[in-house]
Amino acid sequence: MKHIAESTVRRLSLYLRFLEEYEAQGHTTISSGELALSGGTTSAQVRKDLSFFGSFGKRGLGYGVRDLIDAISEILGLHRTWSVVIIGAGKIGAALAQYRGFTSRGFNVVGVYDNDPARIGKRLAELTVRPESDLERDIQRLKPQIALLCVPGEAAQPLVDRVTKAGVRAILNFAPASIQVPAGVRLRAVNMATELEILAFGLSHPEERAS
Amino acid sequence: MKHIAESTVRRLSLYLRFLEEYEAQGHTTISSGELALSGGTTSAQVRKDLSFFGSFGKRGLGYGVRDLIDAISEILGLHRTWSVVIIGAGKIGAALAQYRGFTSRGFNVVGVYDNDPARIGKRLAELTVRPESDLERDIQRLKPQIALLCVPGEAAQPLVDRVTKAGVRAILNFAPASIQVPAGVRLRAVNMATELEILAFGLSHPEERAS
Repeated sequence: MKHIAESTVRRLSLYLRFLEEYEAQGHTTISSGELALSGGTTSAQVRKDLSFFGSFGKRGLGYGVRDLIDAISEILGLHRTWSVVIIGAGKIGAALAQYRGFTSRGFNVVGVYDNDPARIGKRLAELTVRPESDLERDIQRLKPQIALLCVPGEAAQPLVDRVTKAGVRAILNFAPASIQVPAGVRLRAVNMATELEILAFGLSHPEERAS
Repeated sequence: MKHIAESTVRRLSLYLRFLEEYEAQGHTTISSGELALSGGTTSAQVRKDLSFFGSFGKRGLGYGVRDLIDAISEILGLHRTWSVVIIGAGKIGAALAQYRGFTSRGFNVVGVYDNDPARIGKRLAELTVRPESDLERDIQRLKPQIALLCVPGEAAQPLVDRVTKAGVRAILNFAPASIQVPAGVRLRAVNMATELEILAFGLSHPEERAS
């Protein structure tokens, strides 16, 4: 397969979200211009992004909404289910455990873990918080591919080492710490403090162009 | 001032987090190699990043931890207080409203808003959820610079239009929608679904190098 840049994958994800809303509103076709609006980009960029799937848009008729949803879902790996564990059941971990949007996209949360006795045993949606000491055994049994890391910064790296050793292949890091993963393991970070600081930097330096 | 790339700002934010932990552990100096580890980068990159501040590292002695904290805080705009409003008091908005890490970095949450009568009046940490209809009046009075947008996708754009018109200068968007802001307004997005989809894409395409 042709290499697809991360920025393209990001736009495909946005297109997909928009296409699903658009279909729910009863639309069956969409122009590259309408799709461009959803991704904050241009028609030319949309056509380029979609060219990865071959040419199934018809000139003047636009793209079939359902065809595009299927093609993008397929390429993003959403035509299957991914199993996810959430490590850390504090405010962010608990909010994620109760978030319903994951399941509808094929991300199935199979376990929530914490090491605080006050949190262990607590119900979060259909899940019960389990002790972190169960992680290795549960990962062997449930085979989650993805871990959401929602622990304090200093707890992050040791947990990453443990779960990747146990077989987790991808980490989404919410912890305020930079972590290292073994080769072949995918890593993404969601760091609200950093995003806020990038905004603060921008507000403090109005001479820097907005990105 | 010399132009600073966003990737540099992002690393500075990570260095800062690490330096603060490092200082709390009682260290007073740090080498570029130790700092590189914290940002998942190289010593050479660290020296380049820090060269924006002039040269106050001493060869062989490393950098003064407190000097670096002060210099990075200054450049990131953290030597002052920023006022923040949270729009949407669902799971994510409520978790953010109760998150204590903001204040310690100078981000002061001055209001939480929702349009759901079941949420209005609810206490979240020291704040009471107020109706979205109060936004314009409160923004005039409290002058928040930053809004955290935690509403459903379809509600996002109209709220962005309202708060930017009322004077908000930066948006951190948690809503699953691509939004447009007027020129001069800073925009960042935190989209967990997109991050998960980028991971799923990576897991589905092991031939693509991890980014």
